[in-house]
Amino acid sequence: MSQSEKAEAFRALHHGKHLLILPNAWDVPSARIFENAGFPAVATSSAGMMVSLGYRDGEEIGLQEFLSAVRKIARVLTVPMSADLVAGFGTTPEEVATSVKGVIEAGAIGINIEDFTHATGKLHKVEVQVEKIRAIRRKAESMKFPLVINARTDALRYGEGSEEARFSEGIARANKYRDAGADCVYPMGLVDAGSISRFVKQVDHFPVNVMIRKGLPPIEQLQKLGVARVSFGPGASYAAMGLLKRISREIMEKGTYESILGGAITFDELNSLAIPKS
Amino acid sequence: MSQSEKAEAFRALHHGKHLLILPNAWDVPSARIFENAGFPAVATSSAGMMVSLGYRDGEEIGLQEFLSAVRKIARVLTVPMSADLVAGFGTTPEEVATSVKGVIEAGAIGINIEDFTHATGKLHKVEVQVEKIRAIRRKAESMKFPLVINARTDALRYGEGSEEARFSEGIARANKYRDAGADCVYPMGLVDAGSISRFVKQVDHFPVNVMIRKGLPPIEQLQKLGVARVSFGPGASYAAMGLLKRISREIMEKGTYESILGGAITFDELNSLAIPKS
Repeated sequence: MSQSEKAEAFRALHHGKHLLILPNAWDVPSARIFENAGFPAVATSSAGMMVSLGYRDGEEIGLQEFLSAVRKIARVLTVPMSADLVAGFGTTPEEVATSVKGVIEAGAIGINIEDFTHATGKLHKVEVQVEKIRAIRRKAESMKFPLVINARTDALRYGEGSEEARFSEGIARANKYRDAGADCVYPMGLVDAGSISRFVKQVDHFPVNVMIRKGLPPIEQLQKLGVARVSFGPGASYAAMGLLKRISREIMEKGTYESILGGAITFDELNSLAIPKS
Repeated sequence: MSQSEKAEAFRALHHGKHLLILPNAWDVPSARIFENAGFPAVATSSAGMMVSLGYRDGEEIGLQEFLSAVRKIARVLTVPMSADLVAGFGTTPEEVATSVKGVIEAGAIGINIEDFTHATGKLHKVEVQVEKIRAIRRKAESMKFPLVINARTDALRYGEGSEEARFSEGIARANKYRDAGADCVYPMGLVDAGSISRFVKQVDHFPVNVMIRKGLPPIEQLQKLGVARVSFGPGASYAAMGLLKRISREIMEKGTYESILGGAITFDELNSLAIPKS
């Protein structure tokens, strides 16, 4: 498949009979493990990838180093790969569009773009975010590339006013991001079944992305609620680091190796994850 | 502690009352998790680190990119950090010594140096390896730096002749590497209690490093056998990738999230691993 065909295949996964389960990787082998497991596409996790490279989540990392990491992962994957572009590594729509060009050239076929600043926890003005999404779509079109745009909003967390006001702000932003050219909306903090159902209805069943976290209904229920895409977020990194803590505790306290050896892969399998699936 | 003091503290851990349990990390957060867990030092795993960066184990990666990854990990650690330098990124003793200079400048206080080529599985001639270790020691001395050299031998795996002949070759190489300036010897493939006991005796209780793998006696027994250092090798990477497989299978087959959410760390904890311990 060409990169454009991968983008179209990825877009279609948001409109299939089954919802898209999208695992987020932090590096090359974690991405390849997910591909081997049979997922039809793989995404990156910004927190997972940034911290792995020694930066806090957000845009502490430089754009070039970020693109280099995206390129490494895209290089080994056969399935479509979507990159979490944080807030776009730029303040103007033009700068963000330039970052997106870099991500496409690095091999990604989709992006996540968010509407707040990690360092401050402040939401960007909706008009500004709409201009960014429009600029991204224009840039992709100028490259004749059918980029899949997942527009994240943190209005449910960082909006103003009551929970109800923030929820309404999330809906309003989702609809505006859709009209600006997004393919999917990703309201961070959407967890319980009632809220998910309400959100999906209020965006007229436009594709909605939810993240796996405590309290999220299981896949079967998400499907019934009309969710189009469920992603891991940084969950695989959280889980891997939790495992390292258990491994450490067992070795230090009991002097045994069950948690490091049980269910582990082999040297040959690890090594095989550095190269594309044959 | 200065970098030299860290090196001396690390050397002393090979001669303490208790054996040194040395976890090998593949990236920044895995290293910081081990530091937080209370290990007195952290090492890198070559396979873990190389594959994470998109290269097979060995020297497919360029020296500068390798050093950049070592620097990132050293930057966030307070405890001593030893780097697995594979076979030294060079064919002559001088080239290897130059690589070692780079690793020290990147913040490492110790190295692993091995006596075979990954790509071919061929052992280097013992005289050549002895010259490399001598050159490394001379280079460290010229920098007035008390580098801790862990000399790995793959004679037990890649030597010639019978198992007994390969074992003898391993002992002979270990003693020569010690005389050339190594602080510890690391016979890859040393697993069962009988062989470990014999090896430790035949190197006159010079520090011996064993790697955690199936069949290795538990810590308490290793201590009695006179082992000075037990390292994870790429075990943490193998275990983390195994966990990702279980997570994937559960979500795809059962649609549930127990293995990704159970025992996971939080966003704040992951983010805190990108910066040094406060």
